[in-house]
Amino acid sequence: MANNIVVVALGRNAFSESFPKQHERVKKAATAIADLVEAKYEVVITHSNGPQVGMIQTAMTEYSRLDPDRTVAPMSICGAMSQGYIGFDLQNAIRTELLNRGIYKPVSTIITQVRVDPFDRAFNKPTKVIGRLMTKSEADKEQKKGNYVEYEASDDGYRRIIASPKPIDIYEIDAIRALVDANQLVIAAGGGGIPVLEQHMSLKGASAVIEKDYTAAKLADMLDASTLMILTSSDNLVIDAGLETEKPIGKISPEEAKELIDGGHFDEATSLPKIDASYNFVSASKGRRAIITNLEKAKSGIKGKIGTIIES
Amino acid sequence: MANNIVVVALGRNAFSESFPKQHERVKKAATAIADLVEAKYEVVITHSNGPQVGMIQTAMTEYSRLDPDRTVAPMSICGAMSQGYIGFDLQNAIRTELLNRGIYKPVSTIITQVRVDPFDRAFNKPTKVIGRLMTKSEADKEQKKGNYVEYEASDDGYRRIIASPKPIDIYEIDAIRALVDANQLVIAAGGGGIPVLEQHMSLKGASAVIEKDYTAAKLADMLDASTLMILTSSDNLVIDAGLETEKPIGKISPEEAKELIDGGHFDEATSLPKIDASYNFVSASKGRRAIITNLEKAKSGIKGKIGTIIES
Repeated sequence: MANNIVVVALGRNAFSESFPKQHERVKKAATAIADLVEAKYEVVITHSNGPQVGMIQTAMTEYSRLDPDRTVAPMSICGAMSQGYIGFDLQNAIRTELLNRGIYKPVSTIITQVRVDPFDRAFNKPTKVIGRLMTKSEADKEQKKGNYVEYEASDDGYRRIIASPKPIDIYEIDAIRALVDANQLVIAAGGGGIPVLEQHMSLKGASAVIEKDYTAAKLADMLDASTLMILTSSDNLVIDAGLETEKPIGKISPEEAKELIDGGHFDEATSLPKIDASYNFVSASKGRRAIITNLEKAKSGIKGKIGTIIES
Repeated sequence: MANNIVVVALGRNAFSESFPKQHERVKKAATAIADLVEAKYEVVITHSNGPQVGMIQTAMTEYSRLDPDRTVAPMSICGAMSQGYIGFDLQNAIRTELLNRGIYKPVSTIITQVRVDPFDRAFNKPTKVIGRLMTKSEADKEQKKGNYVEYEASDDGYRRIIASPKPIDIYEIDAIRALVDANQLVIAAGGGGIPVLEQHMSLKGASAVIEKDYTAAKLADMLDASTLMILTSSDNLVIDAGLETEKPIGKISPEEAKELIDGGHFDEATSLPKIDASYNFVSASKGRRAIITNLEKAKSGIKGKIGTIIES
């Protein structure tokens, strides 16, 4: 193993839309992180922000309605707010868990921006559903503003959908690296990072959401971590979910992963980004591995005893 | 001068309640920070969040009204969100200004928690007005929840008022120090930091707002900075504001500052925290100075050519 850096991606099951519930829920994530620290890893944490950024966006939209002079908060600002909120809860839970085990290790949250390409094809084909349910007339208004809207049969209403481009750079990487070098825990690139476009010397918030698994892989790659660990709600990824050929995946080589990806064996919304990001990370350099497993089994996962593991 | 670290506190005039206006407004602050970087200072930035945290709190309250299952966001979470939002705007403006001058220097924002004492007398005598205007019946409800509410003759309505305790520790100081040691710019302890109480191994958000000038002085003290710089909207602090004896203050010794503070010459809401925090910082150790001046004149201020300067 080249080094002992692990980038951990926490999924939705580590959080909640309700403030008191999330405060409780993050304790499980804190247990997982503390287990990794005890196993002598330098841990960098990233996380999803799905329901939280939607909540903030809805709240800020309501706020703008109270007074015609007010403008709606752009997605980038809602993303920055969600990083602050989730980081605050998460760093406190981790701090407490470590202190309870007699470990003093600083933990902090870095507001993180991630570069996306304005020509990423994702901008022509938005896929991520965000925000609250809308009526037909609200949906028409959104579309007039140039935003994409889709009818959701399950909810009997409309929802905004936005693009999910790939991460191509992380602007705060130097800060993250300095903290890792100082043997501190860092929470960074929450919600996949705030997507920004580069315009001359400036960064402009993009109306997009970056898949957090891809950002985690990019972060792990830029830090040259030895391990990428994606923590989710099941022990293993499965292929052919719902079919007779459904099967959990254990330890596989990057080549085997590539074959399964190309064969279309993964659910596009949930499993595919995890295995695809893992494959990208592992195949880009030697001595790397990716582990996808249950949040509550991180300790066994890091030892290679459980989970979907991609390793040469 | 012991070192070249300066902790800069940005006031309300560096920001705005409107998203597009703030995006423009922070450029002035970025100019000031870039001037200090060019003058070879290592800059740590802290800032107020007065209107912004009020805006977020109002938005989150509206959100909770949409659905009876939702709980109101605690002040600590609103504070964390405001640090994310303001840090995002500020770090981008600074990054752009530095790049325009041909300087590459990483800049990032750390979500910061500040310890307050549950026995701080401020908790018995709240002074900080927050959030939106309320009707009599809304105010009664707030009071039943144990919150302080005060009638505001100027607005003809009620407002919530909360305590403003003193900062006694900064939890993320190790992260801030690691970034300063790596010669990076850091934005930390926004809005005076998120006030927290220590309960065994845990931190609990306190319903309070810490005066940002006191937190800036605490941060400067903990980093053993040589300079504390409080940037505001006027060139100098004045004594006896509005009286015939009104006079701007130039360069004074800590002893002279103490005399003026004890003599009750400063406006309690605006000037007093600035001079008091400055006095605390300068008198705690040798070789320190504090500068209070106009945001647009930071360059002259750091050279000692303008502003209220407290130095032995």
